[in-house]
Formats: sequence, C-alpha cells, structure tokens
Amino acid sequence: MDSEKSKISIDNFMTLNIKSIQPDINIKDAAKIMYEQHIPSLLVEENHKMIGIITYADIALALTIFDHKPTTQVREIMSSPIISVTSDHSILKAVELMLEKRIHKIPVIDNEKIQGIISATDLMILFSMLSEKQIYNVVKGQIEKI
Amino acid sequence: MDSEKSKISIDNFMTLNIKSIQPDINIKDAAKIMYEQHIPSLLVEENHKMIGIITYADIALALTIFDHKPTTQVREIMSSPIISVTSDHSILKAVELMLEKRIHKIPVIDNEKIQGIISATDLMILFSMLSEKQIYNVVKGQIEKI
Repeated sequence: MDSEKSKISIDNFMTLNIKSIQPDINIKDAAKIMYEQHIPSLLVEENHKMIGIITYADIALALTIFDHKPTTQVREIMSSPIISVTSDHSILKAVELMLEKRIHKIPVIDNEKIQGIISATDLMILFSMLSEKQIYNVVKGQIEKI
Repeated sequence: MDSEKSKISIDNFMTLNIKSIQPDINIKDAAKIMYEQHIPSLLVEENHKMIGIITYADIALALTIFDHKPTTQVREIMSSPIISVTSDHSILKAVELMLEKRIHKIPVIDNEKIQGIISATDLMILFSMLSEKQIYNVVKGQIEKI
C-alpha cells in the first residue's frame, strides 16, 4: 500500500464547532460562552490572527492559584503562542503533540486561517471504531517488541 | 481467537497516580493540590467511600457562572455520584462511557476500593501505538459500512 495514501489526515476528524473571542473579553464572559455553547476551549483572536487559547484549566488556575478576578481580561491568562497543526497532518501527529505537550485540544490552522480543532474527544470517536481484537493485536505487538 | 482472551482490560492502562480529598476542603486548596501534583482531577472521599470527583472545569464554572468563592467547600461543586468502571472492564467500555457522558476521566473502582483512574490521556498513549496503516484500515472499514 502506498504509505502516503494510507494516512488518515486530521481534516477527516477535526471538529468544526470552534469559536474565537477578542483578548479584551473578561474571564467570566469567556466562561459563560464556553458553558452555554458547550465548547471547552476558546481561541483568542486579534487583528485576524490567532494569538492564544483558553481552557477551563486556565480559568480555574487563574481564579485560585494566580489570584486573578473574574473581571481579568483573557489576554492575561490565555496560553500563548498557540500549538497548532495543519489539516493535512496525520492523526498520529496530533496524538503525539497532545501527549508531548499535555494538552487535549489543538487548533487546525492552514495559512494562518483557522480550519477547526482536533481534540482528545475526536480521537476517542476514532478509537471507538476499533474492535477488541484490533486493540489486543496492537497491544500484544507492542509488548512483544519490548 | 477466544474473544474473552482478546480483551484488553482497563487495569493494563489506568493511571495509579490518584489522590482523594475530604469534601470539606475548599476550592482554592483543591486547585493547589491539582496544580502542584500535576493531577487534573481529584476524587472526593468521605467515610472511606468515594462520593464525588472534581475537575478544573467544575472549579472554573463554580467561580464564574455559579458565583461560588474560592473558600466554598468542594462538596458544593463536585460531580456526584461518580461514574466508574471496574478494572476488568474492557478499554472500549471506558471509551464508550467517556463519549456518552462527555467526560475525560473515569475512576476505576473494585468492591468499593479505588484502584486507579482511566483518562483520555491513557487512551491516547494506547492510540499512539497504532500505525498509520492500522488507523487507515479501521477508518476505511467504517466508511465502507455506511
């Protein structure tokens, strides 16, 4: 099999349900958007450029450990710069990045334009397509290699 | 192949690094434990029984949308009752539960005794053992079924 053709790229599995906010929005309003729209992270955009990402963990730590107020602008607490992938990257590249950087969400950006976001949940949907036997064979193969 | 034998059970992949706290600990102290010990969730235990779980999302929402203070006890904001699995459940059962309940962490409890926790990150480690070709074959098979 042609190895190039056998790759499943990120754009097959990414979520298109993304939302970006301005960096001067405050933490409370950002949390409200995340909660009401069932989106566990928001991209932060300024002058048509993605400058950061904010998650529930950023908000929780800001308001407890780092003594911010709900009125603090998200600019102060967002993770920046963004770690991103392009839509033609393979799914396995996204998995590697999530494990290496200890993150669960990676924006998919082509030519500075946001295409979607790939999350641990998207990967679990793919994972759930495996059969017990397929998982067994993979794990068994890995154990035998050690 | 014997289908029972071909199951990979949760105890092969769960994380043993778990921590439980008492329900009267306040939100700020719970966040401090999570941050300092690099644990994104804490189990809440009372009278030797697991009564809830608390994550960064619970803390973020409590302090923004639900107007709690950092001094609120975790009992007030924890997710309860716990959704759990037993260590002999298959990995796929954990994946299904995470997708169905929109959660990323499931405590592993046998006979009311906590054994570990299985998370989306643990599943990604297993996922990263797949080859491009294996993923391709699974996804292709699924698309053909539709």
